[in-house]
Amino acid sequence: MEGFLIDVRRSYRAEALCVVQPADTSEVSDVMKLCHERGIAVTPMGGNTGLVGGAIARTEVPGIILSLKRMNRVRELSLVDDTITVDAGCVLADIQRTVADADRLFPLNLSSEGSCQIGGNIATNAGGVTAVRYGTMRQLVLGLEVVLPNGTVLNGLLKLRKDNTGYDLRQLFIGAEGTLGVITAAVLKLFPAPKATATAMLAVASVDLAMEVLGLVRSAFGERLTSFEIISADYMDVVLRNVAETRSPFIERPAWNLLVEITDSNGDADLAAPMEAVLKTALERELIADAVIAQSEAQAASLWHLRHAVSDAIRYAGPNMSHDSSVPLDKQGVFAELTYARIGARFPESEVLMVGHLGDGNMHIVVLFKPDRFAGREDYMAASEAIDLIIDAIVVELRGSITAEHGVGLSYRYRLDRTTEPAEIELMRAIKNAFDPKGIMNPGKILLPSSR
Amino acid sequence: MEGFLIDVRRSYRAEALCVVQPADTSEVSDVMKLCHERGIAVTPMGGNTGLVGGAIARTEVPGIILSLKRMNRVRELSLVDDTITVDAGCVLADIQRTVADADRLFPLNLSSEGSCQIGGNIATNAGGVTAVRYGTMRQLVLGLEVVLPNGTVLNGLLKLRKDNTGYDLRQLFIGAEGTLGVITAAVLKLFPAPKATATAMLAVASVDLAMEVLGLVRSAFGERLTSFEIISADYMDVVLRNVAETRSPFIERPAWNLLVEITDSNGDADLAAPMEAVLKTALERELIADAVIAQSEAQAASLWHLRHAVSDAIRYAGPNMSHDSSVPLDKQGVFAELTYARIGARFPESEVLMVGHLGDGNMHIVVLFKPDRFAGREDYMAASEAIDLIIDAIVVELRGSITAEHGVGLSYRYRLDRTTEPAEIELMRAIKNAFDPKGIMNPGKILLPSSR
Ligand SMILES: Cc1cc2nc3c(=O)[nH]c(=O)nc-3n(C[C@H](O)[C@H](O)[C@H](O)COP(=O)(O)OP(=O)(O)OC[C@H]3O[C@@H](n4cnc5c(N)ncnc54)[C@H](O)[C@@H]3O)c2cc1C
Ligand SMILES: Cc1cc2nc3c(=O)[nH]c(=O)nc-3n(C[C@H](O)[C@H](O)[C@H](O)COP(=O)(O)OP(=O)(O)OC[C@H]3O[C@@H](n4cnc5c(N)ncnc54)[C@H](O)[C@@H]3O)c2cc1C
Repeated sequence: MEGFLIDVRRSYRAEALCVVQPADTSEVSDVMKLCHERGIAVTPMGGNTGLVGGAIARTEVPGIILSLKRMNRVRELSLVDDTITVDAGCVLADIQRTVADADRLFPLNLSSEGSCQIGGNIATNAGGVTAVRYGTMRQLVLGLEVVLPNGTVLNGLLKLRKDNTGYDLRQLFIGAEGTLGVITAAVLKLFPAPKATATAMLAVASVDLAMEVLGLVRSAFGERLTSFEIISADYMDVVLRNVAETRSPFIERPAWNLLVEITDSNGDADLAAPMEAVLKTALERELIADAVIAQSEAQAASLWHLRHAVSDAIRYAGPNMSHDSSVPLDKQGVFAELTYARIGARFPESEVLMVGHLGDGNMHIVVLFKPDRFAGREDYMAASEAIDLIIDAIVVELRGSITAEHGVGLSYRYRLDRTTEPAEIELMRAIKNAFDPKGIMNPGKILLPSSR
Repeated sequence: MEGFLIDVRRSYRAEALCVVQPADTSEVSDVMKLCHERGIAVTPMGGNTGLVGGAIARTEVPGIILSLKRMNRVRELSLVDDTITVDAGCVLADIQRTVADADRLFPLNLSSEGSCQIGGNIATNAGGVTAVRYGTMRQLVLGLEVVLPNGTVLNGLLKLRKDNTGYDLRQLFIGAEGTLGVITAAVLKLFPAPKATATAMLAVASVDLAMEVLGLVRSAFGERLTSFEIISADYMDVVLRNVAETRSPFIERPAWNLLVEITDSNGDADLAAPMEAVLKTALERELIADAVIAQSEAQAASLWHLRHAVSDAIRYAGPNMSHDSSVPLDKQGVFAELTYARIGARFPESEVLMVGHLGDGNMHIVVLFKPDRFAGREDYMAASEAIDLIIDAIVVELRGSITAEHGVGLSYRYRLDRTTEPAEIELMRAIKNAFDPKGIMNPGKILLPSSR
């Protein structure tokens, strides 16, 4: 069982009776029926790449881990409908490859794509580096097959782009982190494959200037803007120090690095010339200090390697706390400023690193400490709580979200509880209760135990 | 009150104590609190253009009509965030104009846009002629302000593109047809304004050939395909006969007319030449019999006039039943065939007219009878019921939806009930009960009275 008990961040350890690995939907249904009868808790697990402990079984009643691993068949690829129907256990990268072979795109793109599963992506409403163009999982799912806590199978594997038959139950399961049912299969929306791409890395002096660049790029490329990512200087340093085969494309160390990608499904589209023109304008207006345009796929890949290396880079860098917030685009600059100022004032010995999906307003903050900074777990937890409170206050002030794409899981339950209107929490509890009256479906995740 | 009592199809007549027209959210909240206390039913009304009687108060307990008409302010236009925040009572066309003036697009586009309100569009998850590219309302809303049945205001007016803080309550209100709460304001997503457009009408011999044209157009234009509409010959005849300033662009009468629009936010994009190339290929492969490309905005408008005139055309044409189904794209041909065959066999004296958003699989069927065909309402209702059953069976067989974009309202409650899995209906009831335990929010819509 060992491989199923610890999360990717090594923050939690599960306690469970066993791991079950059903082979198909009817086996999932049988397992759920049995657990429902006996009052046994069930924690669904996908690729176990989640960053908030959602797949880690930590239940007050005895529980099992339900792994979707063996359910990894492509059920149907329809090129007329531009859909693929897959088992929930399919690994994201496998789906990407399958549809690319058919000259289509499934746009979800995360650093964890080699091991996360589509069921996990749906359960967490995953975002990633292309959400600025294609949206999050919520926008990419057409149909869902779900096994309810009592074992009933809801067959909603519809390939429809329009369906207004009552309340949209599918949308409720998306982002519910396995607390309302087990997702066993999904119909995904496909897109035209990109045939022309321009990738560039830009050196900018501030987040406000980066936002001006965003405006410029959007007015030049409109719907073609596919990624708009940002990495702070300090974070880039950590990447360059800790991860193999990384090299900054810039001679001077910029305060912020922007990674911009434009794609077009029309292979004849000329993206290089307008990209050069935009960057020239940005240089002239002193919005950027420097820029490189990838001249080959290999160069583009090495720029992307810098971005995708951020999780690896931090792994052994020292004790850290990481955050996943979003605020409106016109508040990005003040968000970064307030965060640096307030965490810096409280923990002057820390390094505040930032990386994010700037195009959709989603900034990840990592607060990094020296290896020997904390005497023990309690000490670490106290600092972590202080940082949570600082970021919560900023997010609430700026009308943002404390968890933009990672979800709530175990990690953010208290933060969700204290930053959300009581009426909303009550409605969430009522929904949970309607779907799972016995409370066996991934209990203790998202919502705090209801005795509180 | 008279103007608030009858629906646009003149199918229903409301019974209500009064019409209230609050000026702002806090007045809506006061009204709801009072009604909640006294057990008075509340039916929200937007522009009253809904086609399923959803805004028509027909409740078993005494009730009021709550019109959003006076709440029609634009609260904020943010060009950095590409969002507009509006009161629910804003008329769709006014929003379109406001954002167009700011060089942006709000893509929702329906024939009723001159009178429907954004709150009604959200409550019905409206689709329209651009959903093939931009999706339905569900994809176009970022934030919602909602007054719950007990008067509590949920302030979810967030401008965030990513927010995974628990269950997505917003998505539940979208498409709930006013049965879970009153939408008082929304944050809408804006898009780059189209700067280049190509509009063409094509003559095709069958739906299957139309689908092949769709494949051709999609591989040529990818993400640029904005509309792909179809009108059957018989329906076009009714339009040409009944609506002023309509003229077919074709000399021969085609079995099906396709209206195709391609747009690009890049004004330099050449769409005319590739459109001609695609149509040439389609002609050579005998997928189409004829085609016209609009040479001016006026010509494009007159092609669109044919499409938008379909509702007016039918108004005085005779007694009719209209349907709003979707099936997967690879089933469009067989859907049309089965519908013609089965309704033709049962009602050989009827004309079966079809018009639809073919690009997203949504076909509207109108079954038209001679003015004197029915002796009275009962006679009409019996035929209507027979046609419902025929279409339901086809839709279920093809894994489609009985209501793709219009919603359920009063009209389709029985059909929803009999074509939906009981477990799903139960979950919907549980959700309704969680949000509206007293059952005062637009009761009797979507779900049948629960005594059944
Ligand atoms: C290096 C790295 C980079 C990442 N980058 C991103 C990013 O850019 N954007 C982003 O959004 N996330 C990112 N993540 C987080 C994570 O990858 C995503 O949340 C991913 O979608 C989780 O998928 P999984 O299969 O690993 O789910 P798991 O970790 O196994 O589970 C996550 C949650 O979903 C539930 N669940 C899993 N499968 C099912 C199912 N079939 N039915 C019901 N519930 C289920 C679990 O119970 C749990 O609550 C990253 C993670 C890593 C390690
Ligand atoms: C000519 C014509 C063409 C149409 N074309 C299309 C089309 O292409 N695609 C499409 O999807 N629809 C179409 N429709 C249907 C209709 O226009 C849409 O459903 C529209 O979105 C309804 O908006 P409304 O403001 O008129 O809503 P109303 O008719 O007033 O109400 C519709 C429903 O929403 C509820 N509601 C309204 N406002 C609120 C609110 N603020 N809060 C909570 N609930 C509310 C009502 O109670 C009711 O259940 C068309 C209708 C007509 C007459």
